[in-house]
Amino acid sequence: MALTYAIIGTGAIGGYYGARLQQGGCDVHFLLHSDYEVVRDRGITIESVDGNFTLPSVKTYNNPKNMPPVDVAVVALKTTNNALITKLLSPIKPNGAILSLQNGLGVETDIVQRLKETTDSVPAILGGLCFICSNKVGDGHIRHMAYGDVLLGAHNDQNQPGPPTPLMESIAADFTRARLPIDLTADLPMARWKKLVWNVPYNGLSVVLDATTEEMMNDDGVRSLITTLMQEVLTVANAWGQKISPGTQRNLPLETIDQMLAHTEEMVPYRTSMKIDYDEGRPMEIEAILGNPILTAQELRISVPAMTVLYQQLTFLNAKNDKDMS
Amino acid sequence: MALTYAIIGTGAIGGYYGARLQQGGCDVHFLLHSDYEVVRDRGITIESVDGNFTLPSVKTYNNPKNMPPVDVAVVALKTTNNALITKLLSPIKPNGAILSLQNGLGVETDIVQRLKETTDSVPAILGGLCFICSNKVGDGHIRHMAYGDVLLGAHNDQNQPGPPTPLMESIAADFTRARLPIDLTADLPMARWKKLVWNVPYNGLSVVLDATTEEMMNDDGVRSLITTLMQEVLTVANAWGQKISPGTQRNLPLETIDQMLAHTEEMVPYRTSMKIDYDEGRPMEIEAILGNPILTAQELRISVPAMTVLYQQLTFLNAKNDKDMS
Repeated sequence: MALTYAIIGTGAIGGYYGARLQQGGCDVHFLLHSDYEVVRDRGITIESVDGNFTLPSVKTYNNPKNMPPVDVAVVALKTTNNALITKLLSPIKPNGAILSLQNGLGVETDIVQRLKETTDSVPAILGGLCFICSNKVGDGHIRHMAYGDVLLGAHNDQNQPGPPTPLMESIAADFTRARLPIDLTADLPMARWKKLVWNVPYNGLSVVLDATTEEMMNDDGVRSLITTLMQEVLTVANAWGQKISPGTQRNLPLETIDQMLAHTEEMVPYRTSMKIDYDEGRPMEIEAILGNPILTAQELRISVPAMTVLYQQLTFLNAKNDKDMS
Repeated sequence: MALTYAIIGTGAIGGYYGARLQQGGCDVHFLLHSDYEVVRDRGITIESVDGNFTLPSVKTYNNPKNMPPVDVAVVALKTTNNALITKLLSPIKPNGAILSLQNGLGVETDIVQRLKETTDSVPAILGGLCFICSNKVGDGHIRHMAYGDVLLGAHNDQNQPGPPTPLMESIAADFTRARLPIDLTADLPMARWKKLVWNVPYNGLSVVLDATTEEMMNDDGVRSLITTLMQEVLTVANAWGQKISPGTQRNLPLETIDQMLAHTEEMVPYRTSMKIDYDEGRPMEIEAILGNPILTAQELRISVPAMTVLYQQLTFLNAKNDKDMS
């Protein structure tokens, strides 16, 4: 029996996964903003490396209060819009959950804290890491360029590992039926750290250097800089793991770095999500991807000089971009 | 009695100072390349904050072998063209000197080493630090936007301080007569280090951030990054000073940083020389300004992480710029 879903933020990520889930047989309710009328009248079109398709009729909403209670409310807002979560979240059934498909560190905690300001009954929070290259290219029109895997885990306030829940198993079944590759992780926080080992260098440098992953990998100096940034993230991740779970083997092995470098070399030339945001004049997810890990490093008294340089550069470019586009 | 000068590289720097010296009564011989015919036929035009002027007739050469021996051969090539020095240097009188008006660290040593490959009699080498904003805007046409001070010192192979020579006094007299502000320094190497405290952050970041000095100073994060870079340069400079001259007070005081920040805030919004080079598709002087100081840091086993990030970024952008423009 498929679950019901609400898509809070029907953009490159929410639109793609929501459309696939509906195509796979799920009941999906889409919350829209700028392209509400277009999608209500003409549906959603997905151009995808895994096959193009159009859903001529989708359940559209421009107000979350009109949405029915669902099993899973998929939060696919940019983290830069998280202040809107209390206004945009649609009703969730008892035993349902929020599934954040957002980038970066601390996004589940951020959602919990914001919801606690307005309600005593915060639902369970799941996190899904999306390894995907997709872009919204027009109203109700999403282009899925590469990959698409999801890694799903559960959040808890103690940031401890925990076994997959029955709801996670059901979500995984829906994704699989929709031909969306999905894996479950018992350690969502460390999975987020691991993804940051990639996201910090490639997202950040792609903006500062105006470069694709391929251009960066072909330059020895940038490759060295990527390695330095990866080492800094990994060092903080492992110190964090030892602090939260002392005496355990909760860490990222050093080989992670070489594996990611090798994997990236084999990838198609890739414009990162941060670069797409920057090019389109949208705020970049600098706090979730760099700011929060740097705060953790400061708490742990670990020096992260290269990350700090990149953070300061991106923050400047973000403000400048905002001025130029407005 | 004014000295005679050869200007090796009649660009934004050589063209400006050479034209001023001729205007002040010196005999100046200009070596030109791309705009030889234009300058031969129409002279040099200077648009300057200190007053516009045209020299309708200047002594032009497109081959240094045709140039007469002079007292001072002013090397005003970009350091990225220093490999050409043995071919471009014109004859120098006995007791004459080379005066490098170039940016960065190790430029005098570089000239000496290159000349030693082809001659046993390397002339005396002087270095002049130019605090100026000027740009070549067309054939035989230079725009001088701000400042213009020169700090003149003597090079020696031991990188030791030394008193001003009579030739330096004569050069200073010529500059003064040409209304070019000039000071003499007994410690050229440390003066170069001090200039790097400014050049490393502002030149480097202006390219990476596509920003003027004013835009950078108005951003707290970038200001913090500038301070970090200045601290790294100053640390290396002072360690270098103690290594070369142990037990002496040969160092840059920490206040240098606050003084430079305050001074830059009062400056007119400034497009750095490295940014001008980048914008015009020319090679940037990355090695002279960042590469050589980083090599010194490595020799002294001092970590300079922010400078290293900036160096790697600029090297990438330089190669990319070269591809885009060619």
